[in-house]
Amino acid sequence: MDTDTRAAAVARDRSDALAGFRDRFALPGGTVYLDGNSLGALPCATADRVARVVTAEWGRDLIRSWNVNEWMHMPTRVGDKIGRLIGAAPGQVLSADSTSVNVFKLAAGALRLRPDRRTVVSDRGNFPTDLYMVQGLSDLIGGRCELRVVEEGEVASAIDDTTALVMLTEVNYRTGWRHDMRKVTEAAHAKGALVLWDLAHSAGAFPVDLDGCGVDFAVGCGYKYLNGGPGAPAFLYVAKHWQDTLAVPLSGWLGHAAPFDFDLAYRPADGIRRQQCGTPPVLSMAALEVGVDLMLEADLAAVRAKSQALIDLFLARVEASCGEWGFRVVTPRDPAVRGSQVSIAHPEGFAIMQALIGRGVIGDFRAPDILRFGLTPLYVGYADVWDAVETLADIMRTGSWDRPENRRRGVVT
Amino acid sequence: MDTDTRAAAVARDRSDALAGFRDRFALPGGTVYLDGNSLGALPCATADRVARVVTAEWGRDLIRSWNVNEWMHMPTRVGDKIGRLIGAAPGQVLSADSTSVNVFKLAAGALRLRPDRRTVVSDRGNFPTDLYMVQGLSDLIGGRCELRVVEEGEVASAIDDTTALVMLTEVNYRTGWRHDMRKVTEAAHAKGALVLWDLAHSAGAFPVDLDGCGVDFAVGCGYKYLNGGPGAPAFLYVAKHWQDTLAVPLSGWLGHAAPFDFDLAYRPADGIRRQQCGTPPVLSMAALEVGVDLMLEADLAAVRAKSQALIDLFLARVEASCGEWGFRVVTPRDPAVRGSQVSIAHPEGFAIMQALIGRGVIGDFRAPDILRFGLTPLYVGYADVWDAVETLADIMRTGSWDRPENRRRGVVT
Repeated sequence: MDTDTRAAAVARDRSDALAGFRDRFALPGGTVYLDGNSLGALPCATADRVARVVTAEWGRDLIRSWNVNEWMHMPTRVGDKIGRLIGAAPGQVLSADSTSVNVFKLAAGALRLRPDRRTVVSDRGNFPTDLYMVQGLSDLIGGRCELRVVEEGEVASAIDDTTALVMLTEVNYRTGWRHDMRKVTEAAHAKGALVLWDLAHSAGAFPVDLDGCGVDFAVGCGYKYLNGGPGAPAFLYVAKHWQDTLAVPLSGWLGHAAPFDFDLAYRPADGIRRQQCGTPPVLSMAALEVGVDLMLEADLAAVRAKSQALIDLFLARVEASCGEWGFRVVTPRDPAVRGSQVSIAHPEGFAIMQALIGRGVIGDFRAPDILRFGLTPLYVGYADVWDAVETLADIMRTGSWDRPENRRRGVVT
Repeated sequence: MDTDTRAAAVARDRSDALAGFRDRFALPGGTVYLDGNSLGALPCATADRVARVVTAEWGRDLIRSWNVNEWMHMPTRVGDKIGRLIGAAPGQVLSADSTSVNVFKLAAGALRLRPDRRTVVSDRGNFPTDLYMVQGLSDLIGGRCELRVVEEGEVASAIDDTTALVMLTEVNYRTGWRHDMRKVTEAAHAKGALVLWDLAHSAGAFPVDLDGCGVDFAVGCGYKYLNGGPGAPAFLYVAKHWQDTLAVPLSGWLGHAAPFDFDLAYRPADGIRRQQCGTPPVLSMAALEVGVDLMLEADLAAVRAKSQALIDLFLARVEASCGEWGFRVVTPRDPAVRGSQVSIAHPEGFAIMQALIGRGVIGDFRAPDILRFGLTPLYVGYADVWDAVETLADIMRTGSWDRPENRRRGVVT
């Protein structure tokens, strides 16, 4: 594969079966957006859908919209659609709350399915909020939960007969390293433990096969590869066979068997609906649905293949154009163990990333030294990757990253 | 006060200082909307604000919006604005999650501030989700929490030295009956208990004085009297002096002291920010802010006075025009013990409400027999109330409620 000329990259974009998706996103001009692993881009259809929900559904139909516009079914409808992207048969996925809150629900429920065990095994590569939620849960329920955080490669060996739950994010948010979901799930089950996968960097990024891997529980994020908008509702998955035994620690009214009976006593709904808690954020969920619908139009196997080709091109260009400036490649070379992002490290990573952003190449920085680039095949092309790395090379060559304005930090880094 | 003619009602609308607010809402023609206690109406400014957030902030500024458009500050900024409506000095209110989730956070935290006590006292008039959340919490933490639900009038006498927390919704969602926040708070404190008020039917409906009443904790809803849109983010209040000792059971990354350090161990932020958990739903929260801003333009004392006058007119008209059809007035006659809704009961309440809705008078029904009408002074006038009751009288007079289509139930009743 020719990675040596921009013309070759342009040619690959021309023959790319996914290239047509780019026009379905409202991307600003003059920008190469490589941060879809943090906040996905805006689908063109979102503005109209949200406007319609605001003006026609809320404004005109008002309270009747819960019935006539089926707001009440949104969490399961959007959940089922997400299910198609992550290998979950209908009735097992719910769009609800934040990823953090969903981790709490499922970790608390899982511990009660394994009352004679108390350990939750996770790894240092998990996104911190997942660890924090279990720390909070552990404080709350006293000695009945202990979080054990090990190195990434040591998860399987850390699982033993005290392990109630193995909780991992499939793709490391910093390095892009990817767990083997099937193997870890099997290793956990072999020891009698349950698994909870966080699909924040998986759903919409590549095919996931939750049912096929025999996963117990999963959560994920709506605002990254699903392009659901800032703070989009998250989702959760509970395998069919656990749904009616899993305890519900956040037992809100919309998870009640008959919410509009207004009973004084909680009685959980059958199925996935019991994992619902409060009233769903309809405007945000409508935006999420547009992003999910768009992703459902794409062939996820093609998305996966292109994302790996984009990463390969990125790394080849970094070696060719940036070899002399001391970047360290963080993401694995082997596609089998990586997600849809590429990370490189540099001691001056923060300032370099600010300089890139100043030049319209938008990635992000993760302390202490990682430059992250999300390569999202629906709206990133080969020429984008070429241009991004050439811009990086230019910044390094001219030393233009080394300016005071590139060292200023915002609230969000 | 003349309640005998429609002309008098029209005249009162003409001289109403709040009348100008009506044009700030996008209400459908031919409708008298009396369900703002369930879903507030759409402010005219909301559509543009949401469109701007979608198109310009998300679409154009993308990930940078967390800094440049201050998304990261939304939960505290909107929280502080809500604070001005409920008598909370800045830094004590956060917009976050759902009311249910916020009840869980604060009830769990409160119990840990009173480790030698285990009872949560509430009443049968509380909205069920608040009770459900404490039931779920109780199941989760075993013997350390027991929910005790008493009759509304017996709350004060039920508080004793085993009571950790008194948790009440200030205004009964069914009857409109209103607790005396100051008295109950004092009674709880006198016994060493803490209080958690649910302001779902208070915030934006009348002046609330959390700081002045010495309230410990409160939660509330964004989509009723704050007109924040379907499933709008809720809010929570933690009195300043509790903020740094209150444990955080839902310890998510945005409540961390330094979320972007990505530490493996949770370390709570100072102040109200530690009550944040996951990433805020920006689109929904932007809509909420518009509703709150609009409410802040109104004089809440005038809102309160008008809402009571509207209820008085409603009840006078029901007596005058509907006296013979067996309605029972549920809401108290004394304004001191009621909120901003009026409820009447009838054995055929469900069908009667459907007939009303079919005629464009939109209230709602609560089993077994209650017809609820939210009287929201910013967009409901005296003539509206007159017309609503006349429509009710006509439906009763003609018997038009008694049709099969009025007995069909949707998902939401």
